Amino acid sequence: MPDYKRPAVEITKFEPENRQGLLLVITGNGKGKTTAALGMTLRAVGHGLKVGIIQFMKGDMYAGEWDGVKHLGENVELFSTGRGFCGILGNPYSREEHRADAQAAIRLAEDKINSHSYDLLILDEINNACHLKLVDLEQVKSLLVARPETMHLVLTGRDAHADIVEMADTVSEVTEIKHAYRNDIEPQPGIDY
Amino acid sequence: MPDYKRPAVEITKFEPENRQGLLLVITGNGKGKTTAALGMTLRAVGHGLKVGIIQFMKGDMYAGEWDGVKHLGENVELFSTGRGFCGILGNPYSREEHRADAQAAIRLAEDKINSHSYDLLILDEINNACHLKLVDLEQVKSLLVARPETMHLVLTGRDAHADIVEMADTVSEVTEIKHAYRNDIEPQPGIDY
Repeated sequence: MPDYKRPAVEITKFEPENRQGLLLVITGNGKGKTTAALGMTLRAVGHGLKVGIIQFMKGDMYAGEWDGVKHLGENVELFSTGRGFCGILGNPYSREEHRADAQAAIRLAEDKINSHSYDLLILDEINNACHLKLVDLEQVKSLLVARPETMHLVLTGRDAHADIVEMADTVSEVTEIKHAYRNDIEPQPGIDY
Repeated sequence: MPDYKRPAVEITKFEPENRQGLLLVITGNGKGKTTAALGMTLRAVGHGLKVGIIQFMKGDMYAGEWDGVKHLGENVELFSTGRGFCGILGNPYSREEHRADAQAAIRLAEDKINSHSYDLLILDEINNACHLKLVDLEQVKSLLVARPETMHLVLTGRDAHADIVEMADTVSEVTEIKHAYRNDIEPQPGIDY
Protein backbone atom coordinates (compact mmCIF):
# COMPACT_ATOMS: atom_id res chain seq x y z
CA MET A 1 0.00 0.00 0.00
CA PRO A 2 -0.17 2.07 -2.09
CA ASP A 3 0.41 0.19 -5.30
CA TYR A 4 0.55 3.44 -7.24
CA LYS A 5 2.74 3.21 -10.33
CA ARG A 6 3.61 6.12 -12.58
CA PRO A 7 2.14 5.82 -16.06
CA ALA A 8 4.74 4.94 -18.69
CA VAL A 9 4.97 8.50 -19.93
CA GLU A 10 8.08 10.09 -21.34
CA ILE A 11 9.31 12.95 -19.17
CA THR A 12 10.38 16.14 -20.89
CA LYS A 13 12.98 18.33 -19.23
CA PHE A 14 12.62 21.81 -20.64
CA GLU A 15 15.65 24.06 -20.99
CA PRO A 16 15.11 27.62 -22.22
CA GLU A 17 17.37 28.89 -24.99
CA ASN A 18 18.05 31.92 -22.85
CA ARG A 19 18.33 31.98 -19.11
CA GLN A 20 16.95 35.28 -18.01
CA GLY A 21 16.52 36.73 -14.56
CA LEU A 22 12.91 37.54 -13.86
CA LEU A 23 11.41 40.13 -11.60
CA LEU A 24 8.34 38.71 -9.89
CA VAL A 25 5.89 40.45 -7.61
CA ILE A 26 3.44 38.54 -5.43
CA THR A 27 1.01 40.95 -3.84
CA GLY A 28 -2.58 41.12 -2.59
CA ASN A 29 -4.36 40.57 0.72
CA GLY A 30 -4.73 36.77 0.58
CA LYS A 31 -2.79 33.88 2.04
CA GLY A 32 -0.09 32.46 -0.21
CA LYS A 33 2.43 35.19 -0.95
CA THR A 34 5.30 34.16 1.30
CA THR A 35 4.59 30.49 0.70
CA ALA A 36 4.65 31.05 -3.08
CA ALA A 37 8.14 32.48 -2.68
CA LEU A 38 9.15 29.58 -0.42
CA GLY A 39 7.83 27.18 -3.04
CA MET A 40 10.03 28.81 -5.67
CA THR A 41 12.88 28.26 -3.23
CA LEU A 42 12.21 24.53 -3.12
CA ARG A 43 11.81 24.41 -6.90
CA ALA A 44 15.00 26.41 -7.50
CA VAL A 45 17.01 24.18 -5.19
CA GLY A 46 15.85 21.23 -7.26
CA HIS A 47 17.52 22.88 -10.25
CA GLY A 48 20.72 23.40 -8.29
CA LEU A 49 20.24 27.14 -7.92
CA LYS A 50 21.35 29.17 -4.93
CA VAL A 51 18.65 31.08 -3.07
CA GLY A 52 18.63 33.93 -0.59
CA ILE A 53 15.60 34.93 1.43
CA ILE A 54 15.43 38.19 3.36
CA GLN A 55 12.27 38.60 5.38
CA PHE A 56 11.23 42.11 6.38
CA MET A 57 9.21 42.82 9.57
CA LYS A 58 9.28 39.14 10.48
CA GLY A 59 12.06 38.67 13.00
CA ASP A 60 9.85 38.53 16.08
CA MET A 61 7.70 35.47 15.43
CA TYR A 62 8.91 31.96 14.71
CA ALA A 63 7.89 30.53 11.35
CA GLY A 64 8.37 26.96 10.16
CA GLU A 65 10.40 28.02 7.14
CA TRP A 66 13.24 29.05 9.46
CA ASP A 67 13.85 25.39 10.19
CA GLY A 68 12.46 24.10 6.90
CA VAL A 69 15.20 25.73 4.86
CA LYS A 70 17.89 24.16 7.05
CA HIS A 71 17.15 20.91 5.21
CA LEU A 72 18.24 22.62 2.02
CA GLY A 73 21.74 23.16 3.38
CA GLU A 74 24.08 25.63 1.73
CA ASN A 75 21.72 26.10 -1.20
CA VAL A 76 19.64 28.55 0.80
CA GLU A 77 20.32 31.40 3.21
CA LEU A 78 17.40 32.86 5.15
CA PHE A 79 17.56 36.08 7.13
CA SER A 80 14.53 36.91 9.22
CA THR A 81 14.73 40.59 10.06
CA GLY A 82 12.63 43.16 11.84
CA ARG A 83 10.31 43.38 14.78
CA GLY A 84 6.97 42.27 13.41
CA PHE A 85 4.42 44.30 11.55
CA CYS A 86 4.86 47.99 12.01
CA GLY A 87 1.75 49.72 13.26
CA ILE A 88 -0.39 46.73 14.18
CA LEU A 89 -2.05 46.51 17.53
CA GLY A 90 0.19 45.08 20.22
CA ASN A 91 3.49 45.68 18.45
CA PRO A 92 5.60 47.52 21.05
CA TYR A 93 8.32 48.98 18.84
CA SER A 94 8.61 52.51 17.51
CA ARG A 95 8.42 53.45 13.88
CA GLU A 96 12.09 54.47 14.03
CA GLU A 97 13.09 51.02 15.28
CA HIS A 98 11.11 49.37 12.52
CA ARG A 99 12.69 51.60 9.92
CA ALA A 100 16.20 51.00 11.24
CA ASP A 101 15.69 47.24 10.92
CA ALA A 102 14.26 47.51 7.42
CA GLN A 103 17.16 49.73 6.42
CA ALA A 104 19.63 47.13 7.69
CA ALA A 105 17.74 44.49 5.71
CA ILE A 106 17.86 46.47 2.50
CA ARG A 107 21.59 47.05 2.93
CA LEU A 108 21.93 43.30 3.31
CA ALA A 109 19.98 42.85 0.07
CA GLU A 110 22.28 45.34 -1.68
CA ASP A 111 25.34 43.45 -0.46
CA LYS A 112 23.94 40.14 -1.64
CA ILE A 113 23.02 41.54 -5.04
CA ASN A 114 26.35 43.24 -5.54
CA SER A 115 28.28 40.12 -4.59
CA HIS A 116 26.21 37.94 -6.97
CA SER A 117 25.57 35.57 -4.08
CA TYR A 118 22.34 34.02 -5.39
CA ASP A 119 20.51 32.93 -8.50
CA LEU A 120 17.23 33.78 -6.79
CA LEU A 121 16.75 36.44 -4.16
CA ILE A 122 13.47 36.73 -2.29
CA LEU A 123 12.61 39.93 -0.47
CA ASP A 124 9.70 38.78 1.60
CA GLU A 125 7.22 41.45 2.72
CA ILE A 126 9.24 44.23 1.10
CA ASN A 127 6.21 45.58 -0.76
CA ASN A 128 4.53 46.22 2.53
CA ALA A 129 7.71 47.61 4.09
CA CYS A 130 7.87 50.03 1.16
CA HIS A 131 4.21 50.96 1.50
CA LEU A 132 4.80 51.72 5.19
CA LYS A 133 7.88 53.79 4.20
CA LEU A 134 10.28 51.65 6.21
CA VAL A 135 12.23 51.50 2.97
CA ASP A 136 11.98 54.07 0.18
CA LEU A 137 10.61 53.30 -3.24
CA GLU A 138 13.86 54.56 -4.78
CA GLN A 139 15.84 52.09 -2.68
CA VAL A 140 13.75 49.22 -4.00
CA LYS A 141 14.06 50.45 -7.58
CA SER A 142 17.83 50.69 -7.20
CA LEU A 143 17.97 47.04 -6.17
CA LEU A 144 15.98 45.99 -9.22
CA VAL A 145 18.25 47.90 -11.56
CA ALA A 146 21.45 46.68 -9.88
CA ARG A 147 20.74 42.98 -10.05
CA PRO A 148 22.70 40.68 -12.36
CA GLU A 149 20.92 39.80 -15.62
CA THR A 150 20.38 36.19 -14.70
CA MET A 151 19.32 36.75 -11.10
CA HIS A 152 15.66 36.25 -10.29
CA LEU A 153 14.17 38.63 -7.78
CA VAL A 154 10.88 37.94 -6.00
CA LEU A 155 9.16 40.71 -4.06
CA THR A 156 6.28 39.74 -1.81
CA GLY A 157 3.83 41.61 0.37
CA ARG A 158 0.58 43.44 -0.03
CA ASP A 159 0.30 46.93 -1.52
CA ALA A 160 3.03 46.60 -4.15
CA HIS A 161 3.78 50.00 -5.63
CA ALA A 162 2.51 50.64 -9.17
CA ASP A 163 6.03 51.52 -10.35
CA ILE A 164 7.33 48.13 -9.18
CA VAL A 165 4.43 46.34 -10.85
CA GLU A 166 5.28 48.24 -14.02
CA MET A 167 8.94 47.12 -13.86
CA ALA A 168 8.10 43.46 -13.13
CA ASP A 169 7.93 40.57 -15.58
CA THR A 170 5.36 38.54 -13.69
CA VAL A 171 2.89 39.85 -11.14
CA SER A 172 0.30 37.85 -9.25
CA GLU A 173 -2.32 39.25 -6.94
CA VAL A 174 -3.41 36.85 -4.22
CA THR A 175 -6.91 37.77 -3.10
CA GLU A 176 -8.57 36.51 0.05
CA ILE A 177 -11.83 34.80 -0.82
CA LYS A 178 -12.08 33.54 2.72
CA HIS A 179 -9.72 32.91 5.64
CA ALA A 180 -10.00 30.56 8.59
CA TYR A 181 -9.21 33.27 11.14
CA ARG A 182 -12.47 35.02 10.32
CA ASN A 183 -14.15 31.96 11.84
CA ASP A 184 -11.97 32.32 14.93
CA ILE A 185 -9.73 29.45 13.95
CA GLU A 186 -6.27 30.05 15.40
CA PRO A 187 -3.20 30.16 13.15
CA GLN A 188 -1.98 26.62 12.55
CA PRO A 189 1.71 25.62 12.42
CA GLY A 190 2.89 24.55 9.00
CA ILE A 191 0.07 26.42 7.31
CA ASP A 192 -0.15 29.92 8.68
CA TYR A 193 3.37 30.22 10.09
CA MET B 1 30.40 40.73 4.41
CA PRO B 2 27.62 41.03 5.23
CA ASP B 3 27.83 42.24 8.79
CA TYR B 4 24.10 41.86 9.19
CA LYS B 5 23.05 41.17 12.75
CA ARG B 6 19.54 40.34 13.89
CA PRO B 7 18.04 43.00 16.12
CA ALA B 8 17.86 41.96 19.77
CA VAL B 9 14.19 41.13 19.57
CA GLU B 10 12.46 38.46 21.56
CA ILE B 11 11.09 35.71 19.33
CA THR B 12 7.61 34.42 20.05
CA LYS B 13 6.72 30.87 19.11
CA PHE B 14 2.97 30.66 18.80
CA GLU B 15 1.17 27.45 19.66
CA PRO B 16 -2.59 27.28 19.07
CA GLU B 17 -4.74 25.95 21.88
CA ASN B 18 -6.33 23.63 19.36
CA ARG B 19 -4.61 21.97 16.48
CA GLN B 20 -7.15 21.78 13.71
CA GLY B 21 -6.83 20.44 10.20
CA LEU B 22 -7.63 23.13 7.66
CA LEU B 23 -9.00 22.81 4.17
CA LEU B 24 -7.28 25.30 1.90
CA VAL B 25 -8.02 26.08 -1.72
CA ILE B 26 -5.57 28.00 -3.91
CA THR B 27 -7.20 28.82 -7.20
CA GLY B 28 -7.14 31.44 -9.96
CA ASN B 29 -5.31 31.95 -13.25
CA GLY B 30 -2.08 33.48 -11.92
CA LYS B 31 1.35 32.11 -11.10
CA GLY B 32 1.85 30.99 -7.50
CA LYS B 33 -0.65 28.24 -6.73
CA THR B 34 1.62 25.20 -6.83
CA THR B 35 4.48 27.15 -5.31
CA ALA B 36 2.23 28.34 -2.46
CA ALA B 37 1.53 24.69 -1.68
CA LEU B 38 5.24 23.84 -1.94
CA GLY B 39 5.99 26.69 0.43
CA MET B 40 3.56 25.27 2.96
CA THR B 41 5.48 22.01 2.56
CA LEU B 42 8.73 23.69 3.53
CA ARG B 43 7.03 25.48 6.42
CA ALA B 44 5.33 22.30 7.65
CA VAL B 45 8.58 20.35 7.57
CA GLY B 46 10.09 23.04 9.78
CA HIS B 47 7.42 22.19 12.34
CA GLY B 48 8.22 18.49 12.09
CA LEU B 49 5.05 17.62 10.18
CA LYS B 50 4.80 14.92 7.53
CA VAL B 51 3.70 16.04 4.08
CA GLY B 52 2.36 14.27 1.02
CA ILE B 53 2.09 15.88 -2.40
CA ILE B 54 0.11 14.31 -5.23
CA GLN B 55 0.37 16.22 -8.48
CA PHE B 56 -2.37 15.71 -11.07
CA MET B 57 -1.71 16.05 -14.84
CA LYS B 58 1.96 16.78 -14.18
CA GLY B 59 3.84 13.54 -14.75
CA ASP B 60 5.18 14.39 -18.21
CA MET B 61 7.32 17.46 -17.53
CA TYR B 62 10.19 17.73 -15.08
CA ALA B 63 9.78 20.29 -12.33
CA GLY B 64 12.39 21.40 -9.84
CA GLU B 65 10.27 20.42 -6.86
CA TRP B 66 10.75 16.75 -7.75
CA ASP B 67 14.38 17.06 -6.70
CA GLY B 68 13.81 19.90 -4.25
CA VAL B 69 11.72 17.75 -1.93
CA LYS B 70 14.42 15.07 -1.85
CA HIS B 71 16.34 17.37 0.47
CA LEU B 72 13.45 17.08 2.91
CA GLY B 73 13.98 13.34 3.28
CA GLU B 74 11.30 11.15 4.76
CA ASN B 75 9.29 14.16 5.84
CA VAL B 76 7.83 14.51 2.36
CA GLU B 77 6.54 12.15 -0.30
CA LEU B 78 5.83 13.55 -3.77
CA PHE B 79 3.94 11.70 -6.48
CA SER B 80 3.87 13.34 -9.90
CA THR B 81 1.07 11.72 -11.81
CA GLY B 82 -0.59 12.09 -15.19
CA ARG B 83 0.36 12.99 -18.72
CA GLY B 84 0.35 16.77 -18.77
CA PHE B 85 -2.60 19.08 -19.21
CA CYS B 86 -5.57 17.39 -20.73
CA GLY B 87 -6.83 19.14 -23.85
CA ILE B 88 -4.02 21.60 -24.45
CA LEU B 89 -2.42 21.89 -27.87
CA GLY B 90 0.31 19.36 -28.46
CA ASN B 91 -0.69 16.94 -25.71
CA PRO B 92 -0.87 13.56 -27.49
CA TYR B 93 -2.89 11.56 -24.96
CA SER B 94 -6.57 10.72 -25.06
CA ARG B 95 -9.13 11.95 -22.58
CA GLU B 96 -9.56 8.35 -21.38
CA GLU B 97 -5.83 8.06 -20.65
CA HIS B 98 -5.88 11.33 -18.74
CA ARG B 99 -8.90 10.23 -16.74
CA ALA B 100 -7.38 6.83 -15.94
CA ASP B 101 -4.28 8.55 -14.54
CA ALA B 102 -6.31 11.02 -12.50
CA GLN B 103 -8.41 8.17 -11.15
CA ALA B 104 -5.27 6.32 -10.06
CA ALA B 105 -4.08 9.51 -8.38
CA ILE B 106 -7.30 10.00 -6.48
CA ARG B 107 -7.22 6.38 -5.30
CA LEU B 108 -3.71 7.08 -4.05
CA ALA B 109 -5.04 10.13 -2.20
CA GLU B 110 -7.79 8.00 -0.64
CA ASP B 111 -5.24 5.43 0.51
CA LYS B 112 -3.03 8.09 2.03
CA ILE B 113 -5.95 9.75 3.80
CA ASN B 114 -7.33 6.49 5.15
CA SER B 115 -3.93 5.39 6.43
CA HIS B 116 -3.35 8.76 8.19
CA SER B 117 0.01 8.98 6.44
CA TYR B 118 0.43 12.75 6.57
CA ASP B 119 -0.25 15.84 8.61
CA LEU B 120 -0.57 17.83 5.40
CA LEU B 121 -1.72 16.47 2.07
CA ILE B 122 -1.46 18.59 -1.06
CA LEU B 123 -3.51 17.68 -4.10
CA ASP B 124 -1.84 19.82 -6.72
CA GLU B 125 -3.93 20.78 -9.75
CA ILE B 126 -6.90 18.76 -8.54
CA ASN B 127 -9.28 21.70 -8.96
CA ASN B 128 -8.49 21.77 -12.65
CA ALA B 129 -8.66 17.96 -12.93
CA CYS B 130 -12.11 18.17 -11.38
CA HIS B 131 -13.17 20.99 -13.71
CA LEU B 132 -12.06 18.86 -16.68
CA LYS B 133 -14.01 15.92 -15.22
CA LEU B 134 -10.93 13.70 -14.92
CA VAL B 135 -12.09 13.24 -11.35
CA ASP B 136 -15.68 13.71 -10.18
CA LEU B 137 -16.75 16.40 -7.76
CA GLU B 138 -18.24 13.75 -5.49
CA GLN B 139 -14.87 11.98 -5.34
CA VAL B 140 -13.20 15.16 -4.19
CA LYS B 141 -15.91 15.86 -1.62
CA SER B 142 -15.55 12.32 -0.27
CA LEU B 143 -11.84 12.94 0.33
CA LEU B 144 -12.57 16.14 2.23
CA VAL B 145 -15.09 14.43 4.46
CA ALA B 146 -12.89 11.36 5.05
CA ARG B 147 -9.80 13.18 6.23
CA PRO B 148 -8.66 13.00 9.87
CA GLU B 149 -9.59 16.02 11.98
CA THR B 150 -6.05 17.26 12.33
CA MET B 151 -4.96 16.70 8.72
CA HIS B 152 -4.54 19.77 6.56
CA LEU B 153 -5.60 19.42 2.96
CA VAL B 154 -4.53 21.86 0.25
CA LEU B 155 -6.23 21.81 -3.13
CA THR B 156 -4.63 23.81 -5.93
CA GLY B 157 -5.52 24.57 -9.53
CA ARG B 158 -7.67 27.02 -11.38
CA ASP B 159 -11.44 26.76 -11.61
CA ALA B 160 -12.09 25.43 -8.11
CA HIS B 161 -15.70 24.29 -7.82
CA ALA B 162 -18.05 26.53 -5.82
CA ASP B 163 -19.00 23.61 -3.56
CA ILE B 164 -15.34 23.06 -2.64
CA VAL B 165 -14.85 26.76 -1.98
CA GLU B 166 -17.91 26.62 0.26
CA MET B 167 -16.46 23.70 2.24
CA ALA B 168 -13.00 25.26 2.63
CA ASP B 169 -11.62 27.18 5.59
CA THR B 170 -9.22 29.37 3.63
CA VAL B 171 -9.46 30.20 -0.06
CA SER B 172 -7.08 32.38 -2.06
CA GLU B 173 -7.51 33.39 -5.67
CA VAL B 174 -4.24 34.07 -7.46
CA THR B 175 -4.91 36.46 -10.32
CA GLU B 176 -2.52 37.13 -13.16
CA ILE B 177 -1.77 40.83 -13.35
CA LYS B 178 0.98 40.12 -15.85
CA HIS B 179 3.13 37.16 -16.85
CA ALA B 180 6.55 37.02 -18.49
CA TYR B 181 5.46 34.57 -21.16
CA ARG B 182 3.21 37.20 -22.69
CA ASN B 183 6.40 39.04 -23.56
CA ASP B 184 7.78 35.87 -25.17
CA ILE B 185 10.07 35.13 -22.25
CA GLU B 186 10.57 31.37 -22.02
CA PRO B 187 9.77 29.47 -18.81
CA GLN B 188 12.71 29.71 -16.45
CA PRO B 189 13.92 26.82 -14.26
CA GLY B 190 13.39 27.36 -10.57
CA ILE B 191 10.66 29.91 -11.21
CA ASP B 192 8.20 28.53 -13.72
CA TYR B 193 8.99 24.83 -13.31
